[in-house]
Amino acid sequence: MKLYDAEFAPSPRRVRIFLAEKGLTDIECIKLNLPAGENLTEEFAHKNPTCKVPVLELDNGTCISEVAAIYRYIEEIQPENPLLGNTAEEKATIEMWDRRIEFAFLYPVFNSFQHTSGIFKDRMTPVAEWGTEARNIAAKFFPIMESQLANHTYIAGESFSAADISALVTLEFAKVIKLRADEQYPNIQRWYELLKQRPSYSA
Amino acid sequence: MKLYDAEFAPSPRRVRIFLAEKGLTDIECIKLNLPAGENLTEEFAHKNPTCKVPVLELDNGTCISEVAAIYRYIEEIQPENPLLGNTAEEKATIEMWDRRIEFAFLYPVFNSFQHTSGIFKDRMTPVAEWGTEARNIAAKFFPIMESQLANHTYIAGESFSAADISALVTLEFAKVIKLRADEQYPNIQRWYELLKQRPSYSA
Repeated sequence: MKLYDAEFAPSPRRVRIFLAEKGLTDIECIKLNLPAGENLTEEFAHKNPTCKVPVLELDNGTCISEVAAIYRYIEEIQPENPLLGNTAEEKATIEMWDRRIEFAFLYPVFNSFQHTSGIFKDRMTPVAEWGTEARNIAAKFFPIMESQLANHTYIAGESFSAADISALVTLEFAKVIKLRADEQYPNIQRWYELLKQRPSYSA
Repeated sequence: MKLYDAEFAPSPRRVRIFLAEKGLTDIECIKLNLPAGENLTEEFAHKNPTCKVPVLELDNGTCISEVAAIYRYIEEIQPENPLLGNTAEEKATIEMWDRRIEFAFLYPVFNSFQHTSGIFKDRMTPVAEWGTEARNIAAKFFPIMESQLANHTYIAGESFSAADISALVTLEFAKVIKLRADEQYPNIQRWYELLKQRPSYSA
């Protein structure tokens, strides 16, 4: 099993933290240089036709991409210390928060970055006005997260889960578009400090 | 258990088809009138802070939103006729395709519709140029889907799965932005005809 990974990219970091929480730190990692386009080769497109990292390549050659699918595979082969829930209700609640974070927070942050940074201008057509609007959309997720964390220790309830990993990585990545959860959001700050204390934080 | 649903909206339709495939057709459905803003009330925001349908309300009052989370809950309580896979590899492959469809196809189609139709102009700031670009991004998913269906009967392999439901509903919804998989894509057409023959299609 090997992981196609990249420096500084948020999506592979979600998987690295998930693996660290599972104690699976000896998986082979192949770091692709994204600015140099190492993910845009024909060879890599055979592993993932959307050309994105991370990709988990199994020993039989099957390639799993998309963070949530890699979470799922790891949880299935290593069920101890579950990060995707135990009961039907827990599993659904974690999946709900993970998707909410992806759709209402991570995806708008990515869009804002891609459409305003200029970094991707030779790979796409940036629309700066959309980049600004996407940042506004992402900022609307903070009150939702704050309200949830005012009533719960972690994003999906009283246990640490994959949804915390997704929220943490997005929160930190949001700095690239100068979006920060400031003192208006004391519960987000409390939760953030809690997560920074976990050994997996540095993964 | 009851489902907050809406006419013509693609996301609740994904859940209705999933329920039909599971033979769970007697769940109470509450249809919200989205153009009238019945999803924008304070009461509904307590069920889902992002104010979107579908929402599955459990008998204990817990509300599960996000289509994939509702898929997960249903699969857990009714495991027969699995739509999310059996083995670790199948589960991850179905989740991978479901996310790919959401990120690379459904989300761009939604964005194109929202930013060009004018229907949502009092609820958001439409950016028409992004709407056009999002349509171009969505169209790039057709070759990926065609290539997969040239080698497999269904989206995630040889068995019908939740990923087929997500792709089917997105494909049909894409007509609102005049995006269609034409005769360039014979395998998508073959697969589409196959899916239309399932009793769940009319759900």
